[in-house]
Amino acid sequence: MPKQARSEATYHALLDAAEQVFAAQGYAAASVAAICRAAGVSKGAFYHHFPSKQAIFLALLQRWLQRLEGQLRHQRRAHPDIAAALLAMSTQVQQVRREGRRHWALWLDFWRYAARDPAVWAATVSPYRRFEQMFAEWLAEAQRQGALPDEDPHTAGRVLLALAMGVLVQGMLLPDDADWGQVAYRGVLTLLRGWGFTPPTTA
Amino acid sequence: MPKQARSEATYHALLDAAEQVFAAQGYAAASVAAICRAAGVSKGAFYHHFPSKQAIFLALLQRWLQRLEGQLRHQRRAHPDIAAALLAMSTQVQQVRREGRRHWALWLDFWRYAARDPAVWAATVSPYRRFEQMFAEWLAEAQRQGALPDEDPHTAGRVLLALAMGVLVQGMLLPDDADWGQVAYRGVLTLLRGWGFTPPTTA
Repeated sequence: MPKQARSEATYHALLDAAEQVFAAQGYAAASVAAICRAAGVSKGAFYHHFPSKQAIFLALLQRWLQRLEGQLRHQRRAHPDIAAALLAMSTQVQQVRREGRRHWALWLDFWRYAARDPAVWAATVSPYRRFEQMFAEWLAEAQRQGALPDEDPHTAGRVLLALAMGVLVQGMLLPDDADWGQVAYRGVLTLLRGWGFTPPTTA
Repeated sequence: MPKQARSEATYHALLDAAEQVFAAQGYAAASVAAICRAAGVSKGAFYHHFPSKQAIFLALLQRWLQRLEGQLRHQRRAHPDIAAALLAMSTQVQQVRREGRRHWALWLDFWRYAARDPAVWAATVSPYRRFEQMFAEWLAEAQRQGALPDEDPHTAGRVLLALAMGVLVQGMLLPDDADWGQVAYRGVLTLLRGWGFTPPTTA
């Protein structure tokens, strides 16, 4: 393997290992040594890529949220109609929830540390703001086309994001109580109707 | 003070102290000794009321959620019209969020421990199920009166609860980004419209 490819493989192996170690042990208990053992690399290799345990913790958060944002933007491109795009995204909640179960403990760690560490806080909230902005832009576009006659697109974006996060939290706590993808779908459908979108023909 | 009143005062002093100690130190780091010191009582008094640190942790959760449920039921009684009651509840989100900021770290601890301890899990999820059931009953009543023509009241209850929890989580992470009471109000108003409730005259 060329040197750069090897270095990239090590980077991703470290992230995958950190994900497992943090989820199993929690952020506080996890050590750089344990992450290196799980990844099968030396401490020197770790510190070549990450200055600290916190740095890899934050890199992990960025990686997840960038993937999720990529999936949402892909759905948007695939559905020129905004209502259809948002409904298609809502059905992804079930998948995000399923993948997220492995990471749930780590999510909570992010939120926990965000409350007391400004660097973790900044890394945690910037993607929320980006998601909110993304939804607000799409909804402003829908407004120019005649929907949302009396709603601020930023408020509407926060409402959408709240629904998504609330379904995820309930789905993490009570995985078997409901079909959470269906709950998200019905919730988005109801919001779209309430905002004055033409009701989609499928339900 | 008569003996029973003194015992009750000790019980509540211990809960108040535990709330502070857990929020400041986290569940894992907090000790029974620290809680006793903060409450100004002996360990004997602690163990008279609670068999363990976990027991007081769970009692604390019960106390909050019972208070919140009491407030919601009070709002329901104060507003015979269900749409009006739900809108009145939505305006409480700002207050719950403000009070919740002190407890946010502890909430996350509850969720964190719920993932690995069946007793904490049961204590964490039973109130969610009760809230969901409560909303579903109110919405079933609204359905008999002609609203929600095509929605399952349990799904609708989960959507409402998701919106509330999602606004709280965003409000905890980004307290200054928005008027979160207003976001909750607009979200509930939009859901009510989408479910076919007659739009309330105030907005």
